[in-house]
Amino acid sequence: MRTVDIIHKKRAGQELSREEIQFLIDGYVRGTIPDYQISACLMAVCFQGMSAKETADLTMVMAESGDQMDLSSIAGIKVDKHSTGGVGDTTTLVLAPLVAAAGVPVAKMSGRGLGHTGGTIDKLEAIPGFAAEQSKEHFLQQVREKGVSVISQSGNITPADKKLYALRDVTATVESIPLIASSIMSKKIASGADAIVLDVKTGDGAFMKTTDDSIELAKAMVAIGTEVGRDTIALITGMDQPLGFAIGNALEVKEAIHTLKGEGPEDLTELCLELGAHMLVLGQKAEDVQQGKEQLKQLIASGEALNRLKEFIAAQGGDRSVIDDPERLPKARVFFEVRSPTSGYIHSMEAEEIGICAMMLGAGRETKEADIDLAVGIELKKKIGDAIQMGDVLAVLHANSEDAETLQTVKDKLLAAYTFSDKSVEKPPLIYAVVTKDGIEYR
Amino acid sequence: MRTVDIIHKKRAGQELSREEIQFLIDGYVRGTIPDYQISACLMAVCFQGMSAKETADLTMVMAESGDQMDLSSIAGIKVDKHSTGGVGDTTTLVLAPLVAAAGVPVAKMSGRGLGHTGGTIDKLEAIPGFAAEQSKEHFLQQVREKGVSVISQSGNITPADKKLYALRDVTATVESIPLIASSIMSKKIASGADAIVLDVKTGDGAFMKTTDDSIELAKAMVAIGTEVGRDTIALITGMDQPLGFAIGNALEVKEAIHTLKGEGPEDLTELCLELGAHMLVLGQKAEDVQQGKEQLKQLIASGEALNRLKEFIAAQGGDRSVIDDPERLPKARVFFEVRSPTSGYIHSMEAEEIGICAMMLGAGRETKEADIDLAVGIELKKKIGDAIQMGDVLAVLHANSEDAETLQTVKDKLLAAYTFSDKSVEKPPLIYAVVTKDGIEYR
Repeated sequence: MRTVDIIHKKRAGQELSREEIQFLIDGYVRGTIPDYQISACLMAVCFQGMSAKETADLTMVMAESGDQMDLSSIAGIKVDKHSTGGVGDTTTLVLAPLVAAAGVPVAKMSGRGLGHTGGTIDKLEAIPGFAAEQSKEHFLQQVREKGVSVISQSGNITPADKKLYALRDVTATVESIPLIASSIMSKKIASGADAIVLDVKTGDGAFMKTTDDSIELAKAMVAIGTEVGRDTIALITGMDQPLGFAIGNALEVKEAIHTLKGEGPEDLTELCLELGAHMLVLGQKAEDVQQGKEQLKQLIASGEALNRLKEFIAAQGGDRSVIDDPERLPKARVFFEVRSPTSGYIHSMEAEEIGICAMMLGAGRETKEADIDLAVGIELKKKIGDAIQMGDVLAVLHANSEDAETLQTVKDKLLAAYTFSDKSVEKPPLIYAVVTKDGIEYR
Repeated sequence: MRTVDIIHKKRAGQELSREEIQFLIDGYVRGTIPDYQISACLMAVCFQGMSAKETADLTMVMAESGDQMDLSSIAGIKVDKHSTGGVGDTTTLVLAPLVAAAGVPVAKMSGRGLGHTGGTIDKLEAIPGFAAEQSKEHFLQQVREKGVSVISQSGNITPADKKLYALRDVTATVESIPLIASSIMSKKIASGADAIVLDVKTGDGAFMKTTDDSIELAKAMVAIGTEVGRDTIALITGMDQPLGFAIGNALEVKEAIHTLKGEGPEDLTELCLELGAHMLVLGQKAEDVQQGKEQLKQLIASGEALNRLKEFIAAQGGDRSVIDDPERLPKARVFFEVRSPTSGYIHSMEAEEIGICAMMLGAGRETKEADIDLAVGIELKKKIGDAIQMGDVLAVLHANSEDAETLQTVKDKLLAAYTFSDKSVEKPPLIYAVVTKDGIEYR
């Protein structure tokens, strides 16, 4: 087998065999195939695409390229959830204890934030004492005993994906549905998931800006799951504005606690119920989505979900008292109100720009190596469709810098992310569609 | 300027600016831009193409990437000829002295053979004493005094093209009209040509297998020449079978000598007259192609062309006596006749396979580093359309190996390159079309 022949084949739009894909990926990871051949092949994939079979093969080859988490010691169907990333997306913090309380074991590896999107591990670390790094043994034991653990990705999981992603990032080959889909799914499969619920964000703050692209990505990932025997469904959900009201690590933990108390923002609550219900269905703990939602509502109303959060936090060394008293979470020193320059209705909010504003305050990382401030962020007071009077507070910046210039820059940038309207504006949809192996159900 | 943004732009099918192309190529040559970014960009070019302006910009950036030959000390218009490479293509050996005799200065840098195609420098080195490596000063002086010099490419000519070509070769990005066109034209321009006659081979033995592809390549090169102020015309000529009867270095020198004596093969003679006449027109030594051909015929008939060959050879240290007595050229020791297995007509001859047979005898190089045997090769006795009787000699192998197995392998391979027909077969066209900046003239 010669690499150049495989590149030729892909360039000509032919389907690569499992053996050819394995040859490329293994050779690249081992260093016997140089990056300049792989990048040329990746660009050919961007133009020619990959078949469902090729995409599934690539996924499995990457999943098997490093360590794989064996969750077989945990009883039941392990259902993982993955979000393609958004602004103010606190769903994992709500869902992990919530579905665990419903009997679906949650053995989850999460990542950190980058750019305008946050990461679950950063958020959890806003809880004093919480240890995201755990041995594999402790992780499995905690899930067996408490039903839930969330740890940071450790060990040598999908090294092929890591190496490929770094190359794609600098060769303009990130945007490719089969490459994005196989990258996400390889990590879920290597993490040991039996079934997967995908939250594919769509809109300004999402990686996929259009519903069509999001549906294509969702279809590709569901096809991979089906091909490799992991029940997979995908929700296409709105990221036209931030989810909930909080953006920033401690602020989002607080919002998650409120949500588990039944006092959370409407959109975040609804999305968690929807995603959670699908997890219950895949985990065979509910007959259908409607029944799943009812179960989850009861677990919130009864306080069982909140209790499970306390147990989960405590099991990983976190201070469970913050759950009852969220004021004990890290707090910023400086508050800066951003007021509306006009009266009327909020017409749009650029989620990506708002995420960048939070990053500029220190809540997120511009580069992987950057430090973050867990206390800072943005607290939204109004969202799309809300009526406003001139001078109303749109948002409060939570900062630890008293540098007036930075605050003014962020304020100006934040205001520039809004558009206003004289006429009333409809709230954007929360859930656009559900993609299953049987087809697409539009909402 | 960021490389990844430029790759993105090309991936999206947008036109790159001269500055962006310069940034990429200069960075690649200097080593500040890694090969994996360049190969991804090259693959994007394979899919998105390049505009005429981009192709011309790339050509000039590559032409200016290293040393450039300054031919201004030579009076007159320096017209270069370039063949895209074929089997038995001895035209340069005939044309250089012939057009020099007509008053067009020939200051030519040529290459060596690779694979199934031969190279002018190898052929010239079959002449005892001939020195293909000359100082720039000697080269220019010889052209000023004798009107003709052919030397091997020396110095640091188009290092960008060399580096890019090596990368394209291993990343399946060779086949791309703008990349092929700019590669060829950059070398011609760096070699100092004022005007260029291109011999774009088409057919089995050529790099371009179809007439359409050959015309596309010709159009791209003529467009570059026009864009950068070098009068350029291209002939699309047949490589459905080897040109002339000789394949192999000394054998082709002998055939060139015969052709300059007016005793050469019909196809080689006709092609040299046609290419030479176009060179005379571009060099303003003939009013039109017809007049140019007449001049060249007279120079052959009068012996002036042959004399010019002698002067040219002698000026570069070669033994001019071989011109009068070609038997003094290197000769093989073993002759092996390949006979027709049938009666009828020769229907086709795969030129590439025949070139490979000559290579297997030692006439050509499988890799750049391989040694060649200047004496060996194949002497064709029949060509497409010729009537044959079973047992007629189709070709004679000239070998220096008495290894019966090798000879048998070559003989079998050679015979497999022929097809025969009961019915009479037309000779394939020699010249398919002429491409100028004003359009295409089909023959």
